[in-house]
Amino acid sequence: MDGAELEVRTLGPCRIDSPLLPLLGERPTTQHYIDEGDKVLFDDTLTMISSRKVPLDELPGFEPAGPRRKIYFDPSKTRVGIVTCGGLCPGLNNVIRGLVLELTNHYGVNRIFGFRHGYQGFIAKYGHSVVDLTPERVAHIDEDGGTILGTSRGQQDPGEIVDCLSRMNINILFVIGGDGTLRGARAIADVVTERGEKIAVVGIPKTIDNDIPYIDQSFGFQTAFAKAAESIRAASAEATSAPGGVGVVRLMGRHSGFIACYATLAKSDADVVLIPELPFTLEGERGLLTYLRRRVEKRGHAVVVVAEGAGQDLVEGLPESSDASGNRKLFDIGPELSRRITDHFAEHGTELNLKYIDPSYHIRSVPANPYDNVYTIRLAHAAVHAAMSGRTEMVVGRWRRRFIHMPIELAVSHRNQVDPAGDLWMSVLEATGQPYRFG
Amino acid sequence: MDGAELEVRTLGPCRIDSPLLPLLGERPTTQHYIDEGDKVLFDDTLTMISSRKVPLDELPGFEPAGPRRKIYFDPSKTRVGIVTCGGLCPGLNNVIRGLVLELTNHYGVNRIFGFRHGYQGFIAKYGHSVVDLTPERVAHIDEDGGTILGTSRGQQDPGEIVDCLSRMNINILFVIGGDGTLRGARAIADVVTERGEKIAVVGIPKTIDNDIPYIDQSFGFQTAFAKAAESIRAASAEATSAPGGVGVVRLMGRHSGFIACYATLAKSDADVVLIPELPFTLEGERGLLTYLRRRVEKRGHAVVVVAEGAGQDLVEGLPESSDASGNRKLFDIGPELSRRITDHFAEHGTELNLKYIDPSYHIRSVPANPYDNVYTIRLAHAAVHAAMSGRTEMVVGRWRRRFIHMPIELAVSHRNQVDPAGDLWMSVLEATGQPYRFG
Amino acid sequence: MDGAELEVRTLGPCRIDSPLLPLLGERPTTQHYIDEGDKVLFDDTLTMISSRKVPLDELPGFEPAGPRRKIYFDPSKTRVGIVTCGGLCPGLNNVIRGLVLELTNHYGVNRIFGFRHGYQGFIAKYGHSVVDLTPERVAHIDEDGGTILGTSRGQQDPGEIVDCLSRMNINILFVIGGDGTLRGARAIADVVTERGEKIAVVGIPKTIDNDIPYIDQSFGFQTAFAKAAESIRAASAEATSAPGGVGVVRLMGRHSGFIACYATLAKSDADVVLIPELPFTLEGERGLLTYLRRRVEKRGHAVVVVAEGAGQDLVEGLPESSDASGNRKLFDIGPELSRRITDHFAEHGTELNLKYIDPSYHIRSVPANPYDNVYTIRLAHAAVHAAMSGRTEMVVGRWRRRFIHMPIELAVSHRNQVDPAGDLWMSVLEATGQPYRFG
Amino acid sequence: MDGAELEVRTLGPCRIDSPLLPLLGERPTTQHYIDEGDKVLFDDTLTMISSRKVPLDELPGFEPAGPRRKIYFDPSKTRVGIVTCGGLCPGLNNVIRGLVLELTNHYGVNRIFGFRHGYQGFIAKYGHSVVDLTPERVAHIDEDGGTILGTSRGQQDPGEIVDCLSRMNINILFVIGGDGTLRGARAIADVVTERGEKIAVVGIPKTIDNDIPYIDQSFGFQTAFAKAAESIRAASAEATSAPGGVGVVRLMGRHSGFIACYATLAKSDADVVLIPELPFTLEGERGLLTYLRRRVEKRGHAVVVVAEGAGQDLVEGLPESSDASGNRKLFDIGPELSRRITDHFAEHGTELNLKYIDPSYHIRSVPANPYDNVYTIRLAHAAVHAAMSGRTEMVVGRWRRRFIHMPIELAVSHRNQVDPAGDLWMSVLEATGQPYRFG
Repeated sequence: MDGAELEVRTLGPCRIDSPLLPLLGERPTTQHYIDEGDKVLFDDTLTMISSRKVPLDELPGFEPAGPRRKIYFDPSKTRVGIVTCGGLCPGLNNVIRGLVLELTNHYGVNRIFGFRHGYQGFIAKYGHSVVDLTPERVAHIDEDGGTILGTSRGQQDPGEIVDCLSRMNINILFVIGGDGTLRGARAIADVVTERGEKIAVVGIPKTIDNDIPYIDQSFGFQTAFAKAAESIRAASAEATSAPGGVGVVRLMGRHSGFIACYATLAKSDADVVLIPELPFTLEGERGLLTYLRRRVEKRGHAVVVVAEGAGQDLVEGLPESSDASGNRKLFDIGPELSRRITDHFAEHGTELNLKYIDPSYHIRSVPANPYDNVYTIRLAHAAVHAAMSGRTEMVVGRWRRRFIHMPIELAVSHRNQVDPAGDLWMSVLEATGQPYRFG
Repeated sequence: MDGAELEVRTLGPCRIDSPLLPLLGERPTTQHYIDEGDKVLFDDTLTMISSRKVPLDELPGFEPAGPRRKIYFDPSKTRVGIVTCGGLCPGLNNVIRGLVLELTNHYGVNRIFGFRHGYQGFIAKYGHSVVDLTPERVAHIDEDGGTILGTSRGQQDPGEIVDCLSRMNINILFVIGGDGTLRGARAIADVVTERGEKIAVVGIPKTIDNDIPYIDQSFGFQTAFAKAAESIRAASAEATSAPGGVGVVRLMGRHSGFIACYATLAKSDADVVLIPELPFTLEGERGLLTYLRRRVEKRGHAVVVVAEGAGQDLVEGLPESSDASGNRKLFDIGPELSRRITDHFAEHGTELNLKYIDPSYHIRSVPANPYDNVYTIRLAHAAVHAAMSGRTEMVVGRWRRRFIHMPIELAVSHRNQVDPAGDLWMSVLEATGQPYRFG
Repeated sequence: MDGAELEVRTLGPCRIDSPLLPLLGERPTTQHYIDEGDKVLFDDTLTMISSRKVPLDELPGFEPAGPRRKIYFDPSKTRVGIVTCGGLCPGLNNVIRGLVLELTNHYGVNRIFGFRHGYQGFIAKYGHSVVDLTPERVAHIDEDGGTILGTSRGQQDPGEIVDCLSRMNINILFVIGGDGTLRGARAIADVVTERGEKIAVVGIPKTIDNDIPYIDQSFGFQTAFAKAAESIRAASAEATSAPGGVGVVRLMGRHSGFIACYATLAKSDADVVLIPELPFTLEGERGLLTYLRRRVEKRGHAVVVVAEGAGQDLVEGLPESSDASGNRKLFDIGPELSRRITDHFAEHGTELNLKYIDPSYHIRSVPANPYDNVYTIRLAHAAVHAAMSGRTEMVVGRWRRRFIHMPIELAVSHRNQVDPAGDLWMSVLEATGQPYRFG
Repeated sequence: MDGAELEVRTLGPCRIDSPLLPLLGERPTTQHYIDEGDKVLFDDTLTMISSRKVPLDELPGFEPAGPRRKIYFDPSKTRVGIVTCGGLCPGLNNVIRGLVLELTNHYGVNRIFGFRHGYQGFIAKYGHSVVDLTPERVAHIDEDGGTILGTSRGQQDPGEIVDCLSRMNINILFVIGGDGTLRGARAIADVVTERGEKIAVVGIPKTIDNDIPYIDQSFGFQTAFAKAAESIRAASAEATSAPGGVGVVRLMGRHSGFIACYATLAKSDADVVLIPELPFTLEGERGLLTYLRRRVEKRGHAVVVVAEGAGQDLVEGLPESSDASGNRKLFDIGPELSRRITDHFAEHGTELNLKYIDPSYHIRSVPANPYDNVYTIRLAHAAVHAAMSGRTEMVVGRWRRRFIHMPIELAVSHRNQVDPAGDLWMSVLEATGQPYRFG
């Protein structure tokens, strides 16, 4: 991580007075507006900083988010597009709503268009109409899950997308989506640059798995793990009510076990948590199956939480395949694990009543909870400020509780994962009592 | 339905003054206690009564539940057993709690035993210990789903069960369970009679599907359908967010579509509801698939709610098999329906994004909601009054908002089902707009 | 209660084929439509019927609700008005939505007008505009508490209201409101009759206190008491956490203690419940204060639930006054009771930490819960069927789980109250352990 | 803020191997344990660091929380006390539970005592018994609000408290409470030092108002503002349903407006938010009253959210008084504001239907939500690690998402407040549309 990687592109210098100035009235405005050139430090411990061996002013840091005194786009002439892509996540409608209200109420932008069903919405052949987004239209959409714009998976030709943006005289495009979507946004920004257009492309990272780096917690994540904790509670009720009761709960988390870890800590009924970050062995004296069987024999019941991406190495020789978003298809660990547990208990003559629970879409289709309501509004405000100041090819994030800007490049550079040596996993181990790893 | 069928057995005449008398203090006690011999009418319309052509005093009616002035068992010497059997249902712990508190606080009974894991709990070879049920032990169990006594499926030898009851000097056995369980309770009561013992066997009917007749709505049903409505909401969020979005929600309901109907009315997002009571055709101009496809083509999305017992005639030649409770195994309509929809849309070149949601155990493992809290307390009070007055081989029910007694025989005589000609189904049709039946 | 009182007026004979016929398709329609002339029996026990000493066909009964084969109004020419009056209640928007959807989707009525802010909406001088009610407009209003039409208290001149209805060619007026409102509706119907107009006036009774007779439970009641139970839970958390902790919870219930009773049974943390139906004494050996103090001295804490209409005789000489709806102003029992408890504990030197909780509008402003969603839809369907068949000066109700019609006269004839000799109050006494009455 | 202020005291060098070592098994333990001497940086922007003008290794920072390789107390001989003080806050039981489980399951400490009703629990004259805290006792307490230990306000003599600790051979005291309580804890630690005892005093800061500095968000805060948002929703339902509807919601927040701000952002129905940090003027052209009246005249309704500590300068000449915790008594802004609004509208002849809502204890007595469940467990783990390593006179906090140690001195040095020039208040202004300040 060095300074260059953290640097955010702008379309050009900001020369227009922000219309927020009168709003703020007598406020000591020197404090509120973000100073160009300030940085939110990337490092947070002395050890980390010391190891860099650079002078203070070369320490890497993110550009802070927030309103600027001068902006790049003239609000009265600005036309904005919004698109949501990929799988659902709690809070999508809140982000749309936050963008529209901030643009209209505070910057005075009043031509905002919603493109339907992800990147398909820009491509003529799909025939999706465009949605006029007004404050009235979005007033209550935060009460519903899903996205009023619809969504779809998969890329579309960036050239065609820019054709559409140009034709509609769009100046700012907000893209709400996951890492595949953000790569698409970067491709769009590249075409924009090649053609010398002045269109800002700003992403709001969406990931229910909380696996996009440098954003503390992704929007919708708290709603999601709270919902997931309900499944653990149900599994526990089932497991404790039956002789030899074992509940197996499969939760979202393709590459990262955050939902599994937080849901487990939120409802302390799990005995074992399996996450993609830590491979595990089923068989053998130190394997999961023996551990689980002994626990059931001793306590009468057990609950296993497994993230969908865990244990992918257990099955070999699967053909590689991917969905429209380019996500590799996973083999379904939940049923496989249930089968292996069943076989193992049968071999050892231990009574088993296994209940398998997969909340699937329940977790991602619900409306945002109050925390995510707040978070998405603030995130949307930050995105609008960034775009109005001409930032492009970037996403808004939150680094240690500070809203920041970061290049798309960085947001898609790797995945955020649970650190097996960090205090989150330590707390999970302490809460479940399971060993550090099986095998 | 005639008078004989409604008659409830008693162990003998009631001669002991009820200990509730002092509790009620100055209350006009003539009104409160139930008069022996009164009846809650079975019929509720003039047409029904007229068609009977019997004198007034021969009109069939249920014995009203409630406290009697004289009781059969001497509280200070009474020993009580409680057992929960079969699948989970919201409110099991509430019923246990209500029984224990009423027995101890108001009748002064203080030897109450919980048998573990259903009828297994009476049989020595399973080795399940007995639980002492005190007011302290049960004080907060209503906050949790499941059952603190555990449960299991399947019958055990009624002779062995009565051996156990005799050995422990149990005078009253409360059995909480579904129709298989209640048949078992009747067998126990038969053995008790044969042996000339004085043990009252009182059932509290449990059925998450609301399919036991003569009890208005079974406990846990409101909690269950409220939870099921969340799945419809999730399916709707998914369906409306994707191009060609179709949500398929599989809900409980082996023989009866009550959960499907109520959940649909509770969250008006469903386009089609399929219940076991109404066979349907998939193919053809008037079949479900064409209807669904046209709806998606017109509105862009649709939600289908299917009860697990619906459409069982769609697959032929399945081998018959049953679980330990004697329930015939159903073929899984959810995935099959999803597959048929997928094929049909593909054949017609209609875009489809099908999301399949099965809330499974979420619906039955949750704690009871406030309504079911109230209902289960009152039901438990009624059961205790019945048992203390020496009633046996009966269950407590609720007939048109009156708590009543009815013979077990009657409770298991048939299943309660949605009347396709009644106003519930009419309201569902009006809410979804679907035709009366497909095919 | 005799037959005449139960008879519902109609505007004239029904001669138009119901448009529901095609909807029902192949259904055995003989069963579904309601037979003119059938009755839902008023009595439910043999004792009650026997005491009437009338022939069977003279037994009193309500007209069953539901669709008729022939209707009175021609849907294509029918214009409908809807108005909501009085205080808020969960489910108001659901009723509006149910009326509109049923009228449009199933009867094909497409001119529906919402009058704003109660009866004010008909009176020119208030200047409230009329709202066009379409299926799109009402699609999601069930997600919000309150009423989209607004409401107000108080009567307006019935002549002026009928002037407005005539001017707008309204054929059916749905009035959603409490007993003051329903008296107003009767006055409107009287003017209609005097003038020889053909306008059906159909009421949907609204009462959060559940105090309108003959309707099982009023809509919104389950939502309300579930919410009220949260206050009891909060009071209990406070009381058990402080030395000498006493929680006092004031709940709605001007004349009836239903909310207090059900909320108490829903969350078993209350030690004392006070309702309007049972006067109580504060002072003296058998008074409430001594009872409460002893309970705190023994158990360390206590929770008191008091309905707003309880103990109105405790303060004498208050001037009589009323609000715009004609409701007599009550003196505020909550703070008074708190003061008296505080004084009493101080006199006896007993430590006291009293926490007073009044959930006030929280209880009535929330969206309806899933049960009330279902109930309000079905109630609205029943109201539409009644109006289309030309019934007038009536309300829809539910008598022992059957939807019925009843004259407004009957609905406002008296208030439904908790029967101190019935099983609800018995269950409350059993749950709290309090004496039948204080004093 | 300099380095000295951030330095945490220890009872002495850590020489005992942590029993966590075997738990962690094959984990790369070099990473997990906290290195003595590392610091979490206090500053987070380059500007802040640069302005310090000190060498890198002198930059101020907090000691990171977490397990140490060596600990100070020998677990097998350690005796622990836990006490909760002051007002209720969601999560108290969770913290108690987290402390007990971590101490027993992972450090093997098995003598843990709960002192009842705050500092009273140490003083003989109150006669409160001590509670044995075992894993079984605390297993499910997180499902309930309040605190199982009870609480009380006010200080007790620190000498007597230390007498009690010595007599019981307590080595570690965990104090959960607000700033008054923490001052008390410091006084206890001082006496401990004077007497040369080896008792670690570790605080877990509790403040529902989120006003303790350096802890990101205090536990229970998210639960509290989510609950508070329900009141805003109720107020909005009331206000929008009545002609001239104004909802006034009074929320907690003596010195800080965090609950008011977050609840407002969580449920975007508020038109005005008033917080203690920003004095406001009622009268005059730019005063609140005129603004509010115009808004009602234009939009028909409005919702005002007021923190309890706002507008304290509006009433002069109130006698100063304080409660047992030393908190100055506030005058009650809610009713006063309602009165002033009523008068103002009356003067201008504007119709007004004002509904006043005060959720009071509802907000603080509820169980913690899933997020706070997670947070409190992790906070409790951090507190146990700190105490076992001999840290004392400190509290655990969270600084920019890192759990840290800080001296009690610092935690009570000032109050955390909403920054009127920061992005939270900016987002509130943007969400409500209100001016920066009134007057």
